[in-house]
Amino acid sequence: MSNQPKHTLTLIPGPIEFDDAVLESMGHPSISHTTTGFAEVFGETLKLLRTLFFATDKKSQPFLLAGSGTVGWDLAGTNLVENGEKVLVLNTGFFAEAWGNSLRALGAEVTEIKPEIGDVPDMAEIEAALKANKYRAITITQVDTSTGVLTDVKKIAELVQRVSPETFTFVDGVCSIAVEELRFDDWKLDFVLTGPQKGIGAPAGLSISFASARAIEFLNTRKTPTGAYFLDMKRWIPIMQAYEGGKPAYFSTPAIQNVYALRTSLQQYATSASSVEQRWKENAKVSDRVKNEIEGLGLKLVATSRSHGAHGLSCVYLPEKVQLGDFLGEMLKNNIQLAGGLVQPVANRYFRIGHMGVSAFKYGHIDYLLEVLPKVMAQLNK
Amino acid sequence: MSNQPKHTLTLIPGPIEFDDAVLESMGHPSISHTTTGFAEVFGETLKLLRTLFFATDKKSQPFLLAGSGTVGWDLAGTNLVENGEKVLVLNTGFFAEAWGNSLRALGAEVTEIKPEIGDVPDMAEIEAALKANKYRAITITQVDTSTGVLTDVKKIAELVQRVSPETFTFVDGVCSIAVEELRFDDWKLDFVLTGPQKGIGAPAGLSISFASARAIEFLNTRKTPTGAYFLDMKRWIPIMQAYEGGKPAYFSTPAIQNVYALRTSLQQYATSASSVEQRWKENAKVSDRVKNEIEGLGLKLVATSRSHGAHGLSCVYLPEKVQLGDFLGEMLKNNIQLAGGLVQPVANRYFRIGHMGVSAFKYGHIDYLLEVLPKVMAQLNK
Repeated sequence: MSNQPKHTLTLIPGPIEFDDAVLESMGHPSISHTTTGFAEVFGETLKLLRTLFFATDKKSQPFLLAGSGTVGWDLAGTNLVENGEKVLVLNTGFFAEAWGNSLRALGAEVTEIKPEIGDVPDMAEIEAALKANKYRAITITQVDTSTGVLTDVKKIAELVQRVSPETFTFVDGVCSIAVEELRFDDWKLDFVLTGPQKGIGAPAGLSISFASARAIEFLNTRKTPTGAYFLDMKRWIPIMQAYEGGKPAYFSTPAIQNVYALRTSLQQYATSASSVEQRWKENAKVSDRVKNEIEGLGLKLVATSRSHGAHGLSCVYLPEKVQLGDFLGEMLKNNIQLAGGLVQPVANRYFRIGHMGVSAFKYGHIDYLLEVLPKVMAQLNK
Repeated sequence: MSNQPKHTLTLIPGPIEFDDAVLESMGHPSISHTTTGFAEVFGETLKLLRTLFFATDKKSQPFLLAGSGTVGWDLAGTNLVENGEKVLVLNTGFFAEAWGNSLRALGAEVTEIKPEIGDVPDMAEIEAALKANKYRAITITQVDTSTGVLTDVKKIAELVQRVSPETFTFVDGVCSIAVEELRFDDWKLDFVLTGPQKGIGAPAGLSISFASARAIEFLNTRKTPTGAYFLDMKRWIPIMQAYEGGKPAYFSTPAIQNVYALRTSLQQYATSASSVEQRWKENAKVSDRVKNEIEGLGLKLVATSRSHGAHGLSCVYLPEKVQLGDFLGEMLKNNIQLAGGLVQPVANRYFRIGHMGVSAFKYGHIDYLLEVLPKVMAQLNK
């Protein structure tokens, strides 16, 4: 078979395969975290993140911490919601639901809107909920990695501003940033979090987020202390501002090598608004191609409509007679690691493909996948 | 000059210079965090950490999270101390004091014992404090990176067990693990935290800690919920136990490449109790050599006695006529990055040298430092 890869390709919806230059940056020699040299690298990374998030308004505050995507949930729930306040959670899958659980653990009172698996939340239902109660925040998981459902952040943010403008709009962009359109400033979002290991294309180990001016203001006016230390946004603001100005500052040692790798990846496509927009378009093109092939094989996507299908991954129901373990095993024999389903009760009835980053745009991994997939499916479907 | 290095040597007390093989592991190709392959790597890393911490009792629970050393403070303060409970903090420097601040932020009532700069806490004073109040925990910063003071963890842990056995013994081992003697099980410690970027010899980006059986039991008997999510130890226990058994589990995506690098470093010296003990001895030897040279130059250490001087770093007062900026600048001209002081009011009167890991044992960086240091000192002291 052509394109046979040298190592097992990680074509799950993250961590994705990384660019060689990004992996090389992970091996950057040691450097003191309090030197101007490193502060400048950190500062450049924050500026590239502003471009990526369309958060160039200086009042929008980036946070880049050692941690994971989950840490972003904690930052939101710890800092921007007070104990006992209400949060409206749009539950479009395993991760959207887990965010709700994190908010509950951190003290919020959570109400869920939960569409059928594969569907998006109903706008009228959101509007009714926002009118019935005063919510501190609404959470939107732009792409739920478990279902491949893309939720319309822009439309929902507009609705919030119309019917409940005091409610914060929180967005989980873990599986969407650098893949789906998101404009932090223009859409008036209050908190967006992500991790580096999906669309962004750098190894896991960092928490990346932006808070709006009014979210930062809330930190000064909230009635109770956050009760946090590492997760206290107020402790990080002067550090991030110093770094962004190219000046060293210290609160807690950053994941230095991971920051170098993140910068290398962002330098490849996040240097201007138009190059980020170009990447969204390219992601959509690759996604269409994969989904066309999948539907051409007679397979059904978990997302109930193409219009709300994510562009960085595809979640696909297996034919009835094919077992998930058999399918993943056969793909693995062809050096392709895919992921199983996550949402009950259908978790063992579907699989997930990630088609982001270098696999989609540079190294031909998706070409190879699209050669292998029909053969394996035909073999198992016999 | 012989030994002239090719790049600026980071000879601060962490992050230290890394082994080439460790940096190479940071560039490990992508792998799914939920494969058996990665679970086995994670599991092996946890077992090596057990050897390093002398925490081989299966009831002692390791935690390896994406994050930083600071996250260990948060784990202790969030999980093992309830709101309003008393903690006795032994303040031997900037980091010991910051740990106290973190405990206050997380809701504890902190009492400090603060010796003179460079000195260790008085045992009689600790005993009196433990008898006067019921403390949930005592914190010991085994080596304070700001002063180079080594506190006698074993002796204090014995005292706690004698006069206040219900008090937890917490240890910050950020600048001591893999350098100073520490025996988690034998010394009956309750929580020890560290990071990878100092004695351990791997890049920053991970939080490493161990909790005792009774600390874990406390999680089930505490009167109030932790109010935490990412920092909730109970959520991590099943994940760590699965990994240690070589089985995949998921709560939050680990810093995969950092775990590979940590494993590589641990494989070099933490494969048996005797090889860890050997490393402690070697560290002491290198430290003695550096401190002899320093005192031979007529310079004074911040630690007021060799008997409580740390073995992984040396904090050294400058001669009166030498300015800190001038000294660090001259060292930098010789491709050596050292660190300034941190503790007020003497922060600008001393400098800090890290002599851990490959710089001490493998790449001859300390030999080079000991060539440069007298020349720079003579030049500035003219």
